[in-house]
Amino acid sequence: DQTTPNCVIKVHDGTRDYNPKQMAIREKVFNTIIRCFKRHGAETIDTPVFELKETLTGKYGEDSKLIYDLKDQGGELLSLRYDLTVPFARYLAMNKITNIKRYHIAKVYRRDNPAMTRGRYREFYQCDFDIAGQYDAMIPDAECLKIVHEILNELDLGDFRIKVNDRRILDGMFAVCGVPDDKFRTICSTVDKLDKMSWEDVKKEMVNEKGLSEEAADQIGEYVSMQGGMDLAERLLQDHKMSQSKQACAGLSDIKLLFKYLQLFHVTDKVVFDLSLARGLDYYTGVIYEAVLTQAGTVSAANEAQNDTNAEESVSVGSVAGGGRYDGLVGMFDPKGRRVPCVGVSIGIERIFSIMEQKAEASPQKVRTTEVQIMVASAQKNLLEERLQLISELWNAGIKAELMYKKNPKLLSQLQYCEEAGIPLVAILGEQELKDGVVKLRVVATREEVDISRADLISEIKRRTEA
Amino acid sequence: DQTTPNCVIKVHDGTRDYNPKQMAIREKVFNTIIRCFKRHGAETIDTPVFELKETLTGKYGEDSKLIYDLKDQGGELLSLRYDLTVPFARYLAMNKITNIKRYHIAKVYRRDNPAMTRGRYREFYQCDFDIAGQYDAMIPDAECLKIVHEILNELDLGDFRIKVNDRRILDGMFAVCGVPDDKFRTICSTVDKLDKMSWEDVKKEMVNEKGLSEEAADQIGEYVSMQGGMDLAERLLQDHKMSQSKQACAGLSDIKLLFKYLQLFHVTDKVVFDLSLARGLDYYTGVIYEAVLTQAGTVSAANEAQNDTNAEESVSVGSVAGGGRYDGLVGMFDPKGRRVPCVGVSIGIERIFSIMEQKAEASPQKVRTTEVQIMVASAQKNLLEERLQLISELWNAGIKAELMYKKNPKLLSQLQYCEEAGIPLVAILGEQELKDGVVKLRVVATREEVDISRADLISEIKRRTEA
Repeated sequence: DQTTPNCVIKVHDGTRDYNPKQMAIREKVFNTIIRCFKRHGAETIDTPVFELKETLTGKYGEDSKLIYDLKDQGGELLSLRYDLTVPFARYLAMNKITNIKRYHIAKVYRRDNPAMTRGRYREFYQCDFDIAGQYDAMIPDAECLKIVHEILNELDLGDFRIKVNDRRILDGMFAVCGVPDDKFRTICSTVDKLDKMSWEDVKKEMVNEKGLSEEAADQIGEYVSMQGGMDLAERLLQDHKMSQSKQACAGLSDIKLLFKYLQLFHVTDKVVFDLSLARGLDYYTGVIYEAVLTQAGTVSAANEAQNDTNAEESVSVGSVAGGGRYDGLVGMFDPKGRRVPCVGVSIGIERIFSIMEQKAEASPQKVRTTEVQIMVASAQKNLLEERLQLISELWNAGIKAELMYKKNPKLLSQLQYCEEAGIPLVAILGEQELKDGVVKLRVVATREEVDISRADLISEIKRRTEA
Repeated sequence: DQTTPNCVIKVHDGTRDYNPKQMAIREKVFNTIIRCFKRHGAETIDTPVFELKETLTGKYGEDSKLIYDLKDQGGELLSLRYDLTVPFARYLAMNKITNIKRYHIAKVYRRDNPAMTRGRYREFYQCDFDIAGQYDAMIPDAECLKIVHEILNELDLGDFRIKVNDRRILDGMFAVCGVPDDKFRTICSTVDKLDKMSWEDVKKEMVNEKGLSEEAADQIGEYVSMQGGMDLAERLLQDHKMSQSKQACAGLSDIKLLFKYLQLFHVTDKVVFDLSLARGLDYYTGVIYEAVLTQAGTVSAANEAQNDTNAEESVSVGSVAGGGRYDGLVGMFDPKGRRVPCVGVSIGIERIFSIMEQKAEASPQKVRTTEVQIMVASAQKNLLEERLQLISELWNAGIKAELMYKKNPKLLSQLQYCEEAGIPLVAILGEQELKDGVVKLRVVATREEVDISRADLISEIKRRTEA
């Protein structure tokens, strides 16, 4: 069963390796996101990459078919996690935790059709921030939106919009438009496709596939074209149809309160109350949101009515964050059904990576993949032992240092390596330097060279590189 | 298919969640390890959690039965990675990389019998550092051992030993002791059990299960009891039997060279040339090593002859790092069989976590799970909006800040929260403070309070917390 040289060497479709350059970019993005989560006082947890199959059952609606299962090799039936939210809810119920603010950055798995150029993979990172606990309305929800705003600002990806809606408003809207109760979730899934399909096609699916009356569909069509701010929430609270639904009114009042808090956070410039926002997942119970990047200069187009979704598609680079309130999920895991209200946000990191990678490609500045401060080199033969001794001293002093793994490397090839890798300094050893108790310190960029006594070398390297 | 509250809420046997306290410890350990890898100039890569099944086939010898397979849901046959070394070799061959120094920190999966109290899990982290490339003998190998030495020193886990051996010495030893060629690997696997079984039981397995002659086994028994340093390598080069094997001589000469370089690194105090070290995996071709923690005060016992392995077991907390040279693995993936020599080390992080956790439990100092610098609190009712405005200013200035998600929290509960979470400062807002344009800054530990003008607040918080 030896692998023959003829077997196919590749990774699974829809997954990828990250090379050192991509990892350097990824690290930068993660650091920005983690810094933000920590600024907001979040702890972090981790969960296994697989859950018992039954833990994931019945949580994802129509998307359940995309779950990766493990082979039954004896023992428990397992599935790869589909998101970080269900494992979080399972964790809370299992440990009887009723209050926590946590972030979790980890990979999730979906047997979806990959579209890797647009940043859609089968294995991808999610960066989740969630607040669990019984609190006063919309305070944690507003913080989640503030976090999205901070992260997208700091990452400097261009202009963005955060669309906001509420599942209770959607359900109320479905009710007053005449959608039968048992069709709420499936019609909601269809509304969710408005960011990829035209209203005409969405309507067709509602009527032809889901069996909705054309009249009901048309009424929905009117509502889902609405966008605005706190004013729209106020208007809909007066709307003769919408105001008949208690649920919708509760949602609309919360949207008003949310906007009030967002004003105090000075982030309303990016937030749009958008009745077409539905979000695919079953478990949301209240406010939902999604952040999309909009290309520079076409912001107003993105704010226009959704009737022509093709136009919207052309200006929206796609969703880069999403989330919402899910007050019922933890209770599904609790033996006594005890509820732990939760709200959270997930940063869609893969699309962000794609954009950052493209930016790095376009930039004249080279991405460094190491942080090496100095190369320990020799100008003459037979100085390997002296190089090993010196580099050991540097490592022990916390200096990031490399040497070439050859007994007698050429000086030129050592210097070329520094240029390629962006290493700023070279410590050159030669017979004379060893006799004098010095090291020749060379600045790669300027080719300037200066003798430094061995005693001063470490502080000199730190002085020159830790600026 | 709704999950009922009666279903079992647990994680897969042999896996675990990490709670915030464990994550804080894990982050500290990872930071130490990553800092060391970066100090040595390593880049980092990442690979998918699963590989094509055929990629893993024929790489792990007897351990292959421990691989987790995914269910065939249509499409490619996949297995969860068993280590990070085979994916690394696949990555090098796939991308035709002949020179790289990289680290990779990620989870691997083994359907082993879990022994979680001793830090053996089915899902666990590996922290791998590897050097690939055709270089002069033993220079990168010595650096790998230097890295193990640095990491175990910095983590301050107590005394340790790094055992060193060479697969060529083992094979040469098997040859001169009369082991048939086709039994080398399986006898090597049995020798590998010497850290868990007595010599008597190992011998029994060799003779009864693997069909080796008692004479050959006894000869092996003599060699595998030997431990020493460079002197032992020199002595064995003169050994009338061992010196008949070219392979063994090549291995012994390299061990001598390795010790010479390790002397220059000043790490030989912890390194032992130990002929009983075998390492289970098939792919090693040259030097191999394993680091074990030894309990304080019993170091000499750990250095004694291995005949009584129970004695050794009682002083050794177990392996915390291991690795070696694998010059043939990349070639197994290359269509033309091109070899890329590699040497690397894997840090056994789970055992290290277990020890660090026990240390944290025993310490009177509380482990903080967040880095929050200040809580924004109010002393009176109806100041939620003012708190939201202030905390937004702090977040925007990069201050790590929290508030309670209640409209009117009690001052006492806000202060208690700070004590529990270890938050050092509180910014207290009241009617008077708002009128005066100040904030009452309270030091939680001393209960000292001082009014700070809003304009000076941010710099004052930074001054007090970024010490």
